Amino acid sequence: MPVKLRVFSLNCWGIRYLSKHRTQRYAMIGDHLSKERHDVVLLQEVWSEKDFLFLKKKLGSTHPFSHYFKSGFFGSGLAVFSRHTIHDAYLYRYSLNGYPYMAHHGDWFGGKAVGKILLNVSGLSVHVFVTHLHAEYCREQDSYLPHRVVQAWELMNFIRHTSAGADVVILGGDLNMQPGDLGMKLLHGYTGLQDCFTETAAFDGCEQGFTHIMDNLFTNKQELIPLGGGIRIDYVFFKGSKRVDVRCESLTTTKGVVPGHPFPYSDHEALCAELLLCPSEEGKGESVPEKDNTAGKLSDLVNTVTEARTEVKVGVHCAERMRHTAARLAIMGLVLLLLELAIAAVPYLAMGADQPFPKTTFYLLGALCFAVLLSTTLLYIFYTMEVKALQGTEDQMRLAVGSLHERLREFPKAACKGRSQRECDGLDPNTPDPDE
Amino acid sequence: MPVKLRVFSLNCWGIRYLSKHRTQRYAMIGDHLSKERHDVVLLQEVWSEKDFLFLKKKLGSTHPFSHYFKSGFFGSGLAVFSRHTIHDAYLYRYSLNGYPYMAHHGDWFGGKAVGKILLNVSGLSVHVFVTHLHAEYCREQDSYLPHRVVQAWELMNFIRHTSAGADVVILGGDLNMQPGDLGMKLLHGYTGLQDCFTETAAFDGCEQGFTHIMDNLFTNKQELIPLGGGIRIDYVFFKGSKRVDVRCESLTTTKGVVPGHPFPYSDHEALCAELLLCPSEEGKGESVPEKDNTAGKLSDLVNTVTEARTEVKVGVHCAERMRHTAARLAIMGLVLLLLELAIAAVPYLAMGADQPFPKTTFYLLGALCFAVLLSTTLLYIFYTMEVKALQGTEDQMRLAVGSLHERLREFPKAACKGRSQRECDGLDPNTPDPDE
Repeated sequence: MPVKLRVFSLNCWGIRYLSKHRTQRYAMIGDHLSKERHDVVLLQEVWSEKDFLFLKKKLGSTHPFSHYFKSGFFGSGLAVFSRHTIHDAYLYRYSLNGYPYMAHHGDWFGGKAVGKILLNVSGLSVHVFVTHLHAEYCREQDSYLPHRVVQAWELMNFIRHTSAGADVVILGGDLNMQPGDLGMKLLHGYTGLQDCFTETAAFDGCEQGFTHIMDNLFTNKQELIPLGGGIRIDYVFFKGSKRVDVRCESLTTTKGVVPGHPFPYSDHEALCAELLLCPSEEGKGESVPEKDNTAGKLSDLVNTVTEARTEVKVGVHCAERMRHTAARLAIMGLVLLLLELAIAAVPYLAMGADQPFPKTTFYLLGALCFAVLLSTTLLYIFYTMEVKALQGTEDQMRLAVGSLHERLREFPKAACKGRSQRECDGLDPNTPDPDE
Repeated sequence: MPVKLRVFSLNCWGIRYLSKHRTQRYAMIGDHLSKERHDVVLLQEVWSEKDFLFLKKKLGSTHPFSHYFKSGFFGSGLAVFSRHTIHDAYLYRYSLNGYPYMAHHGDWFGGKAVGKILLNVSGLSVHVFVTHLHAEYCREQDSYLPHRVVQAWELMNFIRHTSAGADVVILGGDLNMQPGDLGMKLLHGYTGLQDCFTETAAFDGCEQGFTHIMDNLFTNKQELIPLGGGIRIDYVFFKGSKRVDVRCESLTTTKGVVPGHPFPYSDHEALCAELLLCPSEEGKGESVPEKDNTAGKLSDLVNTVTEARTEVKVGVHCAERMRHTAARLAIMGLVLLLLELAIAAVPYLAMGADQPFPKTTFYLLGALCFAVLLSTTLLYIFYTMEVKALQGTEDQMRLAVGSLHERLREFPKAACKGRSQRECDGLDPNTPDPDE
């Protein structure tokens, strides 16, 4: 018997004291969820535990099972409500997530992560993932791109490594990436997850599936105009297995307004996907990449990983440059401090000579040097950790490219006819080798 | 056909400028490894990448595949060498790992983690894990215990969640826990991993399998005397699956001296396990806990998780207390700073009145207040993140206890005859309920 599973996802924009009409919006969200009774509710940006507890109380009768993922300074913002028993919960914190001194962006303080819960739905093992990646503040000059690529890589690896025993895999959340972005290609290529928006025949929502739109009262319209008036950055993905065939029956999104209310649920649109799980002997869903992938697909994946690796290398260079600057400033601070102490010590040693330093200047300069020394030392430690995390990811990517090449070599040579050796090795002939 | 797999594990004690005879010891380790040609070599505390590259060069012909896991400030210290192709590498950084201001212990700066590599040995999928947990500096008053329990919990979860598709699971490393310690019970109870030392009939090594012994030239003997002259904290674990039966044929450890050399390889003893993988239709190895576990075993696991949860709760209390202290100091610093500014501002406002503050005192006090404010703010952020990580783990543990209770309830009531309801629920009748 096919099983119907309704999945809801929403970035709640729940920053205390900053997000507009937060309390009223949570009340609206709570009403909507208890009325709609989705099987699984995946929420992001629930930054305050009080708001989670409010929803938990409100949904006590409709969604008796819940989990709030804690991490970072503000928390991960991730929360799950479920009508089915949550058997297990697991969290993976991304190793990179912006910079603590970019306090106005705030991403670093929210310990961005991917949360996983395990459900048993009609005897099927359903692995549900929820995540929220680092925001994109400027698409043209995105200084956080290496961090987001690392997060996408870690998200993909987490799903791939932890869902081997799953009958059904579901991922929902605010990925802060548009379809076709590098991180999205990594996610698709490696996990084989399917996008509800592209897979369903019955879509009802904003144009092109946008989840961040001009018609939303809370949207900064100036930001969206250069992006074509809307972007799709919130998703629900699914994947079946040999035991279960999964189809997306329908996908709906809110459209900026909530009938009967003066404002929308959030500055993002909510998604609701209706999945149909058909247990079968001949279910088609299976993990990608499998042996039966075409050489072309593997070759595409090699190009994607190579591109991602290049992006991460750019990140390594930036982080190394910043670390170098921090080290130079720290040394400068130390030298100035020592110099000042030496100059001040001269009159004491020369006994009786006049103190050449006005005391005020002396202490001010001393305090300044010390502050520079301390802060640049902390930055040096931070940047070193960033470099290590980026290099670690790059090493994993290099290994991944090697593995893909090996699998490509297993394909019969015949498939390579008419293509250059470089193409046969799965390399884009126009992409430079990142090893060089 | 059974396959033989030889696994080597060693904590290399490779701290640059601090560890004695580091260069000579790495040369000795390299010689030993290239002579012995183990299938998999798991190294910990390889803190310098240069040392890894030295070994990589030296083992180029015997162990063509290697991976160095990068993380934290110094790195994770984890390195793997293999005679079989490494198809994939993955790293999980523990969310807690000591305190940055405990620089003399240094654990925080080494980004402790668990690394995973994927091997294909004679068609079998072998998942190899290597890790190094936070050191234990004082067994009686171990302030790092909550952190180590969280690490053990995360290690166990990482193995459990990522090895569903494995034919063989191997874990090696310096766990900094003795057999019977809380973290070890978590690891055994949940993953079903078997300890080579207890499972093999052919052991050749130090008394009781100790890997940190008095006879080692580098050992601080004063530390080991109260611990009975030796401890076993380095391990090789294994687990089979339905497809493969795994046996430990033999386990050997070094005994403090290396014949023909003036000093040992490290301050830890090296382990070498010989595993026999027997592909079979009726392999006995299977993941634990399975349905066929006895109620007693599940009940033991409930007690272990409950104990771990209590320990984590103690950690939450400590971290909250520290956070509270940091907050109070930060407020004090801020108030003092404002007060000072106010006092200094009075003469300016009263125009012509004498400046009551000697300038030197003014600037010194100002700098001190500012330093207190800055450092306590950073500490406040750090402790908040510690509290969140501990609370997150505690939530997962509460969920785990709930799941175990549910499975216990599935056991026939008959099994409960003669036992109290509390015992039947899998609770130690003497352990208080951590929910209270």
